[in-house]
Amino acid sequence: MKLNFLYSNIQADVAAIEDELQVAVASEQAPLIEEAARQLLAAGGKRIRPIFVCLTARLGQFQWNQVEQAAVAVELIHMASIVHDDVVDDADVRRGRPTIKSKWGNHVAMYTGDFLFAKSLEYMTKIADPEAHRVLSKVTVELAVGEIEQLRAKYDFNQNVRTYLRRIKRKTALLIAASCQLGGIVAQLDPKLHRKLFLFGYYVGMSFQITDDILDFTGSEKSLGKPAGEDLRQGNITLPVFFAMEDEALKSRLHQITEETQRAEMQAFIAAVRASGAIEKSEVIAESYLQKAVAILDEFPPAKELKPLKQIVQFLDKRKY
Amino acid sequence: MKLNFLYSNIQADVAAIEDELQVAVASEQAPLIEEAARQLLAAGGKRIRPIFVCLTARLGQFQWNQVEQAAVAVELIHMASIVHDDVVDDADVRRGRPTIKSKWGNHVAMYTGDFLFAKSLEYMTKIADPEAHRVLSKVTVELAVGEIEQLRAKYDFNQNVRTYLRRIKRKTALLIAASCQLGGIVAQLDPKLHRKLFLFGYYVGMSFQITDDILDFTGSEKSLGKPAGEDLRQGNITLPVFFAMEDEALKSRLHQITEETQRAEMQAFIAAVRASGAIEKSEVIAESYLQKAVAILDEFPPAKELKPLKQIVQFLDKRKY
Repeated sequence: MKLNFLYSNIQADVAAIEDELQVAVASEQAPLIEEAARQLLAAGGKRIRPIFVCLTARLGQFQWNQVEQAAVAVELIHMASIVHDDVVDDADVRRGRPTIKSKWGNHVAMYTGDFLFAKSLEYMTKIADPEAHRVLSKVTVELAVGEIEQLRAKYDFNQNVRTYLRRIKRKTALLIAASCQLGGIVAQLDPKLHRKLFLFGYYVGMSFQITDDILDFTGSEKSLGKPAGEDLRQGNITLPVFFAMEDEALKSRLHQITEETQRAEMQAFIAAVRASGAIEKSEVIAESYLQKAVAILDEFPPAKELKPLKQIVQFLDKRKY
Repeated sequence: MKLNFLYSNIQADVAAIEDELQVAVASEQAPLIEEAARQLLAAGGKRIRPIFVCLTARLGQFQWNQVEQAAVAVELIHMASIVHDDVVDDADVRRGRPTIKSKWGNHVAMYTGDFLFAKSLEYMTKIADPEAHRVLSKVTVELAVGEIEQLRAKYDFNQNVRTYLRRIKRKTALLIAASCQLGGIVAQLDPKLHRKLFLFGYYVGMSFQITDDILDFTGSEKSLGKPAGEDLRQGNITLPVFFAMEDEALKSRLHQITEETQRAEMQAFIAAVRASGAIEKSEVIAESYLQKAVAILDEFPPAKELKPLKQIVQFLDKRKY
């Protein structure tokens, strides 16, 4: 996913944040953490959270320094959570590169995640408005709860869609929501407006995660940076799987997936889910979240600064195909 | 270690903090985390960090609510770090009870630590003074660096005492230092004074950890809540080991300790370290830190509120015997 089309607007901002992320992970005292974190940064990632902080801040009056602290804080929280997730998912590859846990082991990965999380706190404390701290600390707790929920829900083919939606809310949507709201907070928007930005980010985040979950079935190993079907093999029951399980015969087959299922075997499962119509149904849901996101933007006073936010939404919509 | 002698002073405070810790770990959405965290709370622990927050706050004018938030925040950070440490140390028992990782596995332990850390952040944000946030976020980063340093230094019998002292500073002393300073901050002490409290806590914390490291050789399994010599068996090279290694023959023997060394074999190593005079030398260092701590208190304007702090120092001194 390339958000290059936005770069005429915020290329300099994103580059500055990237530099600051390099500063954040520099640690003379812990060269191993630094090396691990730099590899994580080099692997890229969409930086969608910092981008949202930058774009929403433009709706008001901001000091760049505050935008930057907020953007770095949210990205560090995101990085910390994926490092820990890779331990639990026993993931060897992310974004086409070896994961920290595969290269240095689970213990280094755990402490690297702790370091990144602690660092995010350091950036957070530099944000002047305490409302920003409240928002971030709340979603960080939810993120941890979401992590453990995901762990417990693995290979549980009897859970319902509601638990899935609640889980992706915690695991993904709330941090994106907070990123959008933080931009509004540091730009001193009226609380009514920055709360709307939270809701906007929530809807975008829900759609974003559902699309990610669709791509696990429709993407190529090259585009995903990891084998297709990997989430399902790991026991993560996502929206396409729920729709696929509406077919009882397919449901019985999917139930057979365990930790021992080999990657090669997954091809048949992926094909069956794709053939079931589950992808299309999931896309409808992802799109409905995006429509809700756009509707929130329509509640804002007209401003040219809303345009890039709408462009991202359009882009996320196209990303499915 | 029982700090009962203090209880006439702060029994009600400590009980209130204990109640609030129960509130902090309550999680309707994540019953597993709640259960794990409650077990950790039930295992007790000295609550030395919250106690320091309470006692140092009494040197100034405080709102109880702010003291409580700070005390709960520091204890949650401490709890998070020990849950993660138990994963790395592969510890089955802590304070005489099964660890979270032994009961629910490494993944649950990792996420429970994440949850506790996130919760600490939530409490931290309720502290009004941003100086408190800066102090806590800084030591939290140092704590993470200390964790990874400890991991790298395992079974490295060629490290020097300086790296040991730096490690225990990060792993233990700085959070106790921050606890002491936080009490001063929420009690609106003059910055000169709350910085002195940081230094006081730092010296106490250094002594505290050295004493813990001595007890690994002199304590009984019952009093330690884990087998004696367990730190050494885990490859943690502590102050008594450095002194013991001044004897070249003993140094060569200690070098043989690996992850494979059985608990039963450790008895001979423990006896050899004890017979080497290393314990007494370590006690001298621990005591010298305590003397520095007392000297800091002597720089304060006379006040009866200093007495319990001096009592703790005396108690920690006696704890060695």
